[in-house]
Order: sequence, then structure tokens, then C-alpha cells
Amino acid sequence: MNKAIIAFDADDTLWDNEGYFLETEHLFCELLEDFAPKHTISRELLTTEIANLKLYGYGIKGFMLSMVETAIRVTDGKIPARAINRIIELGQELLQKPVVLIPGVEEVLELLKRDFRIVVATKGDLLDQHRKLHLSGLGPYFHHIEIMTEKKEEDYKKLINRLEIAPANFVMIGNSLKSDALPVLEIGGRAIHVPYHTTWEHEKIGFEINHQNFRSVQNIREVPAKISEMLGS
Amino acid sequence: MNKAIIAFDADDTLWDNEGYFLETEHLFCELLEDFAPKHTISRELLTTEIANLKLYGYGIKGFMLSMVETAIRVTDGKIPARAINRIIELGQELLQKPVVLIPGVEEVLELLKRDFRIVVATKGDLLDQHRKLHLSGLGPYFHHIEIMTEKKEEDYKKLINRLEIAPANFVMIGNSLKSDALPVLEIGGRAIHVPYHTTWEHEKIGFEINHQNFRSVQNIREVPAKISEMLGS
Repeated sequence: MNKAIIAFDADDTLWDNEGYFLETEHLFCELLEDFAPKHTISRELLTTEIANLKLYGYGIKGFMLSMVETAIRVTDGKIPARAINRIIELGQELLQKPVVLIPGVEEVLELLKRDFRIVVATKGDLLDQHRKLHLSGLGPYFHHIEIMTEKKEEDYKKLINRLEIAPANFVMIGNSLKSDALPVLEIGGRAIHVPYHTTWEHEKIGFEINHQNFRSVQNIREVPAKISEMLGS
Repeated sequence: MNKAIIAFDADDTLWDNEGYFLETEHLFCELLEDFAPKHTISRELLTTEIANLKLYGYGIKGFMLSMVETAIRVTDGKIPARAINRIIELGQELLQKPVVLIPGVEEVLELLKRDFRIVVATKGDLLDQHRKLHLSGLGPYFHHIEIMTEKKEEDYKKLINRLEIAPANFVMIGNSLKSDALPVLEIGGRAIHVPYHTTWEHEKIGFEINHQNFRSVQNIREVPAKISEMLGS
């Protein structure tokens, strides 16, 4: 067994997620179309979500509360209670979406588990992430599951300490340059970026990363070869 | 260092919690007093909360969503959007309450840490529990923090496996017979019940526990002596 540990982000890295949020947001905007155009509502929702991140953290329940708050604000309190109820239903439906694996995930995990310990490092609601992990059937591949309140340098330091390895032996795989690559590189770890076809506005960064411990691939199937190249094995 | 691990529940064991929920529920009922009497609203809220537990898990965000849903239902959709906004504010205030330690907690932890590894095992919102732990200043006493989606037998089994000890060396301290004592005893662990002056309806059980691995105390200050008695040290 190689001493390095491979950590995977979950949402939009192992399974689809952002698409479900966009679909819900679309229905939410439709519900309010008599009050404001879609782009206004989307912008207001994003503002509310970011303002509430510190209080709610990441995940669907916080998203639901931010939708309700936004709906009341953009309609100047004119939204009928029935429509608010519909918003809650939309959120409850989001909490029950099927888990669709990204093609290639299982074969990559199957390959990597021969040589490495594999962990999950993800943000989001505790219960919801456990639900998705359970439905994904991927549980047995993982040595450890870490649901994180944030993915900043401090959070990765704690995780790496707990895993009892050197930062250079920690390889993070994920779709967010901001959350899965930058903070990991900053503390001496390694990162491989696997882009997803859509990225939440709040996770976008406006520059490219050039770093000896960083790689980018187009498809998760390229990850094992990149890891070998990176670790020189 | 003794090989046993002492696990503490957090809400209403280390710090006050249920009192804040009751206070919020009281203000929620007042907000709806034109529509239904307090006891009706309280009962309806509890029904909603329990129905949503599977979807939301434990914690304040789920409680907020259940309040909104209940308000719409008991007013038959007549509640104005402004009042729903007030409900969200009540929840946001609840998320920012100060953390008040239960008297005796620090001296008990100070005493126990000389001989034992101490962990926290609690349900609730991930971010909110981390916030409270941080504000409590108790972080340095703990070897490990476990935020659990549920506290059933399976969940304790996983925790004890991760801690790499025999169940008989796991001593759980908490205020809920249902969540902190029964499942632990069932899997061969030990439990000490420290009642809090108020218990959430959903955590109540209708019988007494008589078990060789179970003790009950009136005050957390009695815990260290009970542990010595139990472990025969």
C-alpha cells in the first residue's frame, strides 16, 4: 500500500449535484415570474445565499431557507403563503433526488484502492451527504469520510493531521479550483482538478493555476495515471 | 492513561440548548396567536418536526423549515409573508445564541482528562455544533469530535470501531435516556444519565432503565466518581 492518501470531493466529482440545484432554481424563478425577471431573482438568490453562508453553511437546508427569504424580499412581502409552501416542497424534492454517478468513477476507485487509501472530503449537510454516499454504493471504497464545514487551509490542515500523513502525501481530487485545489496547494498538498460542466458562481476563480503539485485533467478516468506521474511511482 | 474513553453529549449536557428552542417556540406561537391557541401550534410543530426528521435530520435549520411549514398549514395559507420572514429571523437569532456552560462542566473535564481520553458525540447541524464548541472554549479537552446524524445502535458501533476500543471501555454521558443511554447499553457500552431540567418531547421514554452498565446522577459533578465506581478503578 502506497503511503499517500487520495481524497475525493463528492458533489460534481463523484456524482451530479449542481444540475439539480440549477433545475430547482429554475422552478423557483418561474414561481416568481410575475414579480421579477429570472436573472434578477437568480442574482438576488445568490446574494442571499452568500450572505447566509456564515450562518447556514453549505447544503440544501440553507439553500431552502435562502429561497424563502429571497422570495419574500423580491416580492416585497406580496408572495402568497402557498407559493412559499411550494418552495419548501421544491427543497424537499431536491433532498430526495437520485444519486447519479459520474461515468468512470467506479472503475477509477476500483483501480486506486489497490494501491492507496481513499477518503471523501466534502462540504454540505451532514445527513444529506451520508444519504448520497449510501445511495451511491461507493461507501466500501472509502477509508474515511470527512464532511467539512469549510474547505479552507485550516480545514485541510486538520484533516491531514487526523490522517497522520505528510501534506505531500495528500492528493485532493475535485471540480472546484477554489475549494479543492488552492487551499490544498497552499499547505503543501497536491491537487488534481477534474472540471464539471457547470460550476456554482461562488466557487469560481478568475485565474489559472500553475504549480508543481497541481494537475488538471478533462475526465476522471485520467486521474490514476496523473497520480502515478505526480507521485513518481 | 486509562484505556476507557469518556464520551459527552453536547446540547443540554455540556451547555444549555433546549431552553433556547422553547423560547423560540414560544415567540413562534405568539406570532400565530390570532390563528390558533398555543398548545395547538406546539403540537402541530412537533408533528411537523418528527415527520421531517428523516429528511432534515437534527438541528436549527430543519427546525426553521418546520416552523415555516407549520405556520402555513395551521393558518390555512393565510399567514402573511412578513410573518414568515419573522420566523426566519427567529431561527437566525437562535443560530447566534451565546453558549452557556452547565455549571461544573469545566471542573469535571479538567479532572477526567488526567486519566481518560474524552470525546464529544452529538447530533445537530455540523456548522452550528462546531460554532458552539468553539464558543464554549472546551475544544482543547477533546480528543475527538463526532457530529452524528443519528444516535442509534449502528451509529455508536461505528464510533466505537473508529475509536478502536472495546464497547465496555466506552462510557457515554448525556441527558437523553433514549439517545445517550439505551443504544449504548444495547451494544455493550456504559452510560451515565445526567438529566437536564427540560427534555424535548421526542427524546422522552416511558420507562426506567435498570442495567449493570447504567448509572444515573443528579449533577454532572458526580460523574467522575461514578466512572471510577463503574470501571472499578
